[in-house]
Amino acid sequence: MTEFKLDPSRQRVASRLADIEPFRVMDILAQAKALQAGGRDIVHLEVGEPDFPTPAPIVEAGIRALRDGLTHYTPSLGLPELREAIASYYAERHSVRVSARRVAVTPGASGALLLAMAALFDPGDEILLADPGYPCNRHFARLVEARGVAIPVGPGTGFQLTAEAVRRNWRERTRGVLIANPANPTGTVIAHAELQAIHAVVREKGGWLIVDEIYHELVYETSPPSAASLGDDVIVINSFSKYWQMTGWRLGWLVVPEGIMPGIDRLAQNIFLAAPTPAQYAALAAFGKETRAILEIRKAILRQRRDGLVPALERLGFSIPVRPQGAFYVYAGIEQFSDDAERFSADLLRQAGVAITPGVDFGSHVAGSHVRFAYTTDDARIGEAMERLTGFLLR
Amino acid sequence: MTEFKLDPSRQRVASRLADIEPFRVMDILAQAKALQAGGRDIVHLEVGEPDFPTPAPIVEAGIRALRDGLTHYTPSLGLPELREAIASYYAERHSVRVSARRVAVTPGASGALLLAMAALFDPGDEILLADPGYPCNRHFARLVEARGVAIPVGPGTGFQLTAEAVRRNWRERTRGVLIANPANPTGTVIAHAELQAIHAVVREKGGWLIVDEIYHELVYETSPPSAASLGDDVIVINSFSKYWQMTGWRLGWLVVPEGIMPGIDRLAQNIFLAAPTPAQYAALAAFGKETRAILEIRKAILRQRRDGLVPALERLGFSIPVRPQGAFYVYAGIEQFSDDAERFSADLLRQAGVAITPGVDFGSHVAGSHVRFAYTTDDARIGEAMERLTGFLLR
Repeated sequence: MTEFKLDPSRQRVASRLADIEPFRVMDILAQAKALQAGGRDIVHLEVGEPDFPTPAPIVEAGIRALRDGLTHYTPSLGLPELREAIASYYAERHSVRVSARRVAVTPGASGALLLAMAALFDPGDEILLADPGYPCNRHFARLVEARGVAIPVGPGTGFQLTAEAVRRNWRERTRGVLIANPANPTGTVIAHAELQAIHAVVREKGGWLIVDEIYHELVYETSPPSAASLGDDVIVINSFSKYWQMTGWRLGWLVVPEGIMPGIDRLAQNIFLAAPTPAQYAALAAFGKETRAILEIRKAILRQRRDGLVPALERLGFSIPVRPQGAFYVYAGIEQFSDDAERFSADLLRQAGVAITPGVDFGSHVAGSHVRFAYTTDDARIGEAMERLTGFLLR
Repeated sequence: MTEFKLDPSRQRVASRLADIEPFRVMDILAQAKALQAGGRDIVHLEVGEPDFPTPAPIVEAGIRALRDGLTHYTPSLGLPELREAIASYYAERHSVRVSARRVAVTPGASGALLLAMAALFDPGDEILLADPGYPCNRHFARLVEARGVAIPVGPGTGFQLTAEAVRRNWRERTRGVLIANPANPTGTVIAHAELQAIHAVVREKGGWLIVDEIYHELVYETSPPSAASLGDDVIVINSFSKYWQMTGWRLGWLVVPEGIMPGIDRLAQNIFLAAPTPAQYAALAAFGKETRAILEIRKAILRQRRDGLVPALERLGFSIPVRPQGAFYVYAGIEQFSDDAERFSADLLRQAGVAITPGVDFGSHVAGSHVRFAYTTDDARIGEAMERLTGFLLR
């Protein structure tokens, strides 16, 4: 075997690699695990993943499918009965009629985002995104040579885009807007009237409105309508990961106008063939009453954690200008302590054994003065983290 | 909810959609299933998926993981112990040292192809591919705005590219070559000396050699060396789908030069987060002796099917200029019967209830005069198909 040294001057890689930043929370997780391997006790408040295992009825449905030998490919858009179940979910939970023909089952919301970006956007097309926001969104755009345009948002608009901001930032190459409702990292919900107004602007401009609802079932005080209710031209992304706690199974879905489904199907056939089969059979148990009862208890636990964490952080001097209404995140200002959130997070991990995510993971606007706390660990551990934080801040 | 009609003059989709052709075998499968739903008996010789269920030790490992609550995300490059197991597989089975640091676990070979294309190729870059060949390859290139350049190959070179053809077709924008060994749809193996010579040309040109080995364990008379033995600059793609019969689990892997792994990791983090967790734990049982014993029996069954099918087709008048050495496909010429393989396949399905794949799925070179038979069903059914074919051809 010939010795080989990569010579970038000869064997170059794609330019896009330089624009695709690491999803830092994964690096932090790796550092935290390395510290743990060395014997340190680390409190994990960085992970965007519920600490609960997948509910038993879902796991049992998955095991039954495996025992029954259901390990072959499904159709590329998903098991017909799962597409129907998702359609029924919209009817029963959100009172919106969504035809199963408009539902594509995908490998996680990641697969749904990839399909949507690949189906809708040409090289050079621009998609408006909130900053702060989910970091992968702009990278999905970059993958297909389109461009995510980060629009700074702040507490005044609940860290969400507005119809006015969309109109003001719409340029010749703008082809779409992506809204996460509720948003990551802020946990904030967009007012339905504002979402309607954004939809009207996007329609007027002949663009696409994509709404990421992966945390939509994790809104604590209210039940915001699904964006699917706005019209059947809205692209809706959802996932079994967060509320249904199926992260590792990699299963999500996409709702699109029926007219573009043939294109979505062709893309899905070619890009990933189909979503994982055991996950799809397991998810057939996701909408049952027994599963929902389990999930609603867990949702109440998440809410209690938020209700404890937000005032605790405020007492420590963090600024939380908008109370998070959903997801499992608190986006907190560290203005009192530092203007370098990356350094702050690294020091906190190393010195106090508390892992959080620096703002830079979510954009560049006010990123240096913000961090994200994920309340994806239990009250005792969150309490421990608050004690350690107290010590750390007094250092 | 507002009524909405998609207006392509206003709300346009991405141009790439027009270039992404349906993976026809999926359409044929859908038509065949529709006929079945109407009561017809259909023999399936179109499906690129083994008919065997996943081996029990793999299924049991998956079930154990689910029972143990292992349903969370894994690291984006895969479970460390699975990466190690894959590295050991190269050492033990192929006598090649591949560091686990060079192995990325992916959602199917599809995920591996997507990562490789996205990491290596810029818009306008060209990748040389054999025609006939696996249809998704050019679409992965198209997704990232690169271009698959189909090079006609024929029986004279075992339907594989040659070093001479690679050199002759290398142009200013050519950045890589993709070889499938053995190939789909022809089941032909490339001579190792030829692969070495191609590697030398690609190195000389400063490009990338990607070798798809998803059928590599399904070569019947010989054990060709893995392309990983050529040098650590070769990109190798593999999958647990075909030999290990884990299609629906969606699990594959990618071997890359260590220098580009950080970029691959960032892409994986952003594009799919991680491969499915239950599949990864299940695959830990894939390399065990018990599993291998099961798989080798099944491989012998596939070989027997090939040994029956090839002469049976020849007796019926199909031309098979190169005996397939691996995979589970026979690429057969229908020159004696028709010059319209799509029509031939459609008629055969409708009139005789035998589903096969027309050549057009694999390119445009001699596509009209070729069809693919997949021997992914048992001898009795293959026999039934041959009887039906006899009647169909005498019609």
